[in-house]
Amino acid sequence: MPERLVVVGGVAAGMSAAAKARRTNPDLEIVVYEKSGFVSYGACGFPYFIKGDIARIEELIARTPAQFARQGIRALTHHEVTHIDVTARTVTVRDRRTGETRVDPWDKLILTTGGVATRPSLPGVTLSGIFTLRTPEDALALDAWLKEHRPHRGVIVGGGYIGLEMAEALMARGVRVTLIEMLPQVLPTVDPDVAAPVAETLTRHGVEVLLTHRVEVFEGKTRVREVVANGHTFPAEVVVLSVGVRPNVTLAQEAGIALGPTGAVAVDAQMRTNVPHVWAAGDVAEVHHLVTGKPAYIPLGTTANKQGRVAGTNAAGGNARFAGVVGTAVVKVFDLHVARTGLSEQQAREEGIDAAAITVQSTTRAHYMPGSRPIQVKLVYERGTHRLLGGQIVGQEGVAKRIDVLAAALHAGWTTYDLAQLDASYAPPFAPVWDPILVAANVASR
Amino acid sequence: MPERLVVVGGVAAGMSAAAKARRTNPDLEIVVYEKSGFVSYGACGFPYFIKGDIARIEELIARTPAQFARQGIRALTHHEVTHIDVTARTVTVRDRRTGETRVDPWDKLILTTGGVATRPSLPGVTLSGIFTLRTPEDALALDAWLKEHRPHRGVIVGGGYIGLEMAEALMARGVRVTLIEMLPQVLPTVDPDVAAPVAETLTRHGVEVLLTHRVEVFEGKTRVREVVANGHTFPAEVVVLSVGVRPNVTLAQEAGIALGPTGAVAVDAQMRTNVPHVWAAGDVAEVHHLVTGKPAYIPLGTTANKQGRVAGTNAAGGNARFAGVVGTAVVKVFDLHVARTGLSEQQAREEGIDAAAITVQSTTRAHYMPGSRPIQVKLVYERGTHRLLGGQIVGQEGVAKRIDVLAAALHAGWTTYDLAQLDASYAPPFAPVWDPILVAANVASR
Repeated sequence: MPERLVVVGGVAAGMSAAAKARRTNPDLEIVVYEKSGFVSYGACGFPYFIKGDIARIEELIARTPAQFARQGIRALTHHEVTHIDVTARTVTVRDRRTGETRVDPWDKLILTTGGVATRPSLPGVTLSGIFTLRTPEDALALDAWLKEHRPHRGVIVGGGYIGLEMAEALMARGVRVTLIEMLPQVLPTVDPDVAAPVAETLTRHGVEVLLTHRVEVFEGKTRVREVVANGHTFPAEVVVLSVGVRPNVTLAQEAGIALGPTGAVAVDAQMRTNVPHVWAAGDVAEVHHLVTGKPAYIPLGTTANKQGRVAGTNAAGGNARFAGVVGTAVVKVFDLHVARTGLSEQQAREEGIDAAAITVQSTTRAHYMPGSRPIQVKLVYERGTHRLLGGQIVGQEGVAKRIDVLAAALHAGWTTYDLAQLDASYAPPFAPVWDPILVAANVASR
Repeated sequence: MPERLVVVGGVAAGMSAAAKARRTNPDLEIVVYEKSGFVSYGACGFPYFIKGDIARIEELIARTPAQFARQGIRALTHHEVTHIDVTARTVTVRDRRTGETRVDPWDKLILTTGGVATRPSLPGVTLSGIFTLRTPEDALALDAWLKEHRPHRGVIVGGGYIGLEMAEALMARGVRVTLIEMLPQVLPTVDPDVAAPVAETLTRHGVEVLLTHRVEVFEGKTRVREVVANGHTFPAEVVVLSVGVRPNVTLAQEAGIALGPTGAVAVDAQMRTNVPHVWAAGDVAEVHHLVTGKPAYIPLGTTANKQGRVAGTNAAGGNARFAGVVGTAVVKVFDLHVARTGLSEQQAREEGIDAAAITVQSTTRAHYMPGSRPIQVKLVYERGTHRLLGGQIVGQEGVAKRIDVLAAALHAGWTTYDLAQLDASYAPPFAPVWDPILVAANVASR
């Protein structure tokens, strides 16, 4: 009898794992249980679906259960795993449409239960018109709400990546948006000086940005009408909560699968958990941070895909390793692109590193070229050794792939001197002869 | 008395050297002799000046002699060094406007005489209307010719970077262009499969592209009228020669400064020549190629700037090193961006390396995003070890900075496995969740 692999959760990590397991071992029996109605969807596309850039949610689906079936992968939607028994090697699965429950055996298990959007326990948080945005169902419900109620005013709670993307999306749907952020800056993964132009961009595009404001209550009878923060009342016929994601570890904890210091499932480079034959990947799992050398919780689709491949390979008898992350991310906020990698200045100091930082202003193309735009590069490095610790870039073009160069530098463990040597491409339409990254590296190397 | 640094040639390498020498040693006396009428110009901008993107040639000048004077650097234009005496430590300098000659002492010398455009010794090559494009004077003369004669037909000889940029520039000036290339492909620094879409793009934009055609004669009385290649006659009221650049080593050879195997001045990592107190940098000098470990001749502005800084630092008593290049370059050809780094498949084989190559087709943004464009990534790697040897990227956006990621990977000596681990940035407007580079690395790692 072939071995049986059960994958719990069928989004980025789960379906990558299943697909890679299939390629690694054609004989393996592979079953994926996904509690939502969709597998293999690109959750990062939801804000663009809401904005109207993408007409149908189906466009965000990489592959359907029928397509996986042709690879010999059974991907069952509306199937929720309610219990994992790591001794008997079974899962208890409930069909959410029929309510039927069955107990299903496994030889290998990959836990990809993802993350859950934090829902602050505030008065009125269960009123209708208040949304999070994690699943296709969430996105469809918000879209339907916007179509049905045509809200004029909306509140976004939280100024992280999703909050900023949703501000742009709701504005595009004709909603006047108030963004309420608890901290004194938006985008807490970048330093305050880098976050400042982001807030300015939001304001310039008509978003009301309120920093150091704490939501106290959502008002309304059945539907949300107002949001109260710092004692002030803001009208809101729609609310999007984007205050963070925590790992969905309920099943793992019940099963005795160990969590790490971040509260996510602890995994090694092979994505093994503490339980034999059980791997974990994606937003439920920790990552090894290559700059700090410590576990971190940075739930992102790119990492989920990479970890999923590694878990799938290993669960199927192969041998793969996931090196870890450097914490790279990028977000578009109207016409502004903001990217970061490694440690921010603030994070470096929190790590107890004697960090220095420099910021340079340059242009995205040769200064004389039409279409050249300002770009700002900040480098964070260790004083003395000049080891690069991180970078942050803000501009209107050429940001996302420049941060990838810094990400590569972090993977390679470069100093600012090493970075200054980079043989970067140059032609007037694409960069100044000294690329902004090299200018920054030169300044940091003084 | 302060030491005296003479810099021979005041373009990218020379002026970088002078500026860096000044910052390194405030007491140094610094004189730069430049035979053209301009210093510190961005020669890579000339095609965009001809095209009309840049109104005045002065916009291509980074800093004027007056600006350098404020830093305590004497930059003398129209001054040609005609002889270097490395024993007496003097240069003979001729003022090209007055014809006066003087002999000038130096303690330290930096040779930055650049490259010269190859001018094939063909019948009729001295007819008026035939241009090369190395100096501001060249660019101004071509611009004046286009204004005065308003040519309807033009020929570009050579399908390298400048030839392709000039094809676009002349077409923008209303000239119907025939591009004549001796080899069976344009862009000889990329592989034929990568060059093919470039030729197609040229053709689609109305350029007549003739490969494996050898120019035999330029016809005309005083002005060029026709170009004959492979026995066929092509009308041409303007001709641009872009058949290559060779190092301008005449002065060096006369002075006993040693050349390397490429025919350019041999330098070490500190940019020292074989002669004590004499450094060289820029298009006159060789570079150390980090992938082959051998000297190479790859004259580019980026390298000239980096080498200039190193030579200037060291000549002024500091200590700097230039690691070398990986051969990164990018060019825009109408709406197509083409970039390369490291070794092409062809070059790798010429080096005797057992090279393999893969090519992937992907998109520049998440496939569902508006504006997403096709992009093609080719990776060249060593069979067995999977050491990355080079990369080539073609697309309509997001090409130049993606090649820089591959350049960083080459600097770091990565395998395709290492590259596949890169924590690259992702958001739907900037990349698919698997960046095309990572897709290529995964395919190459199979």
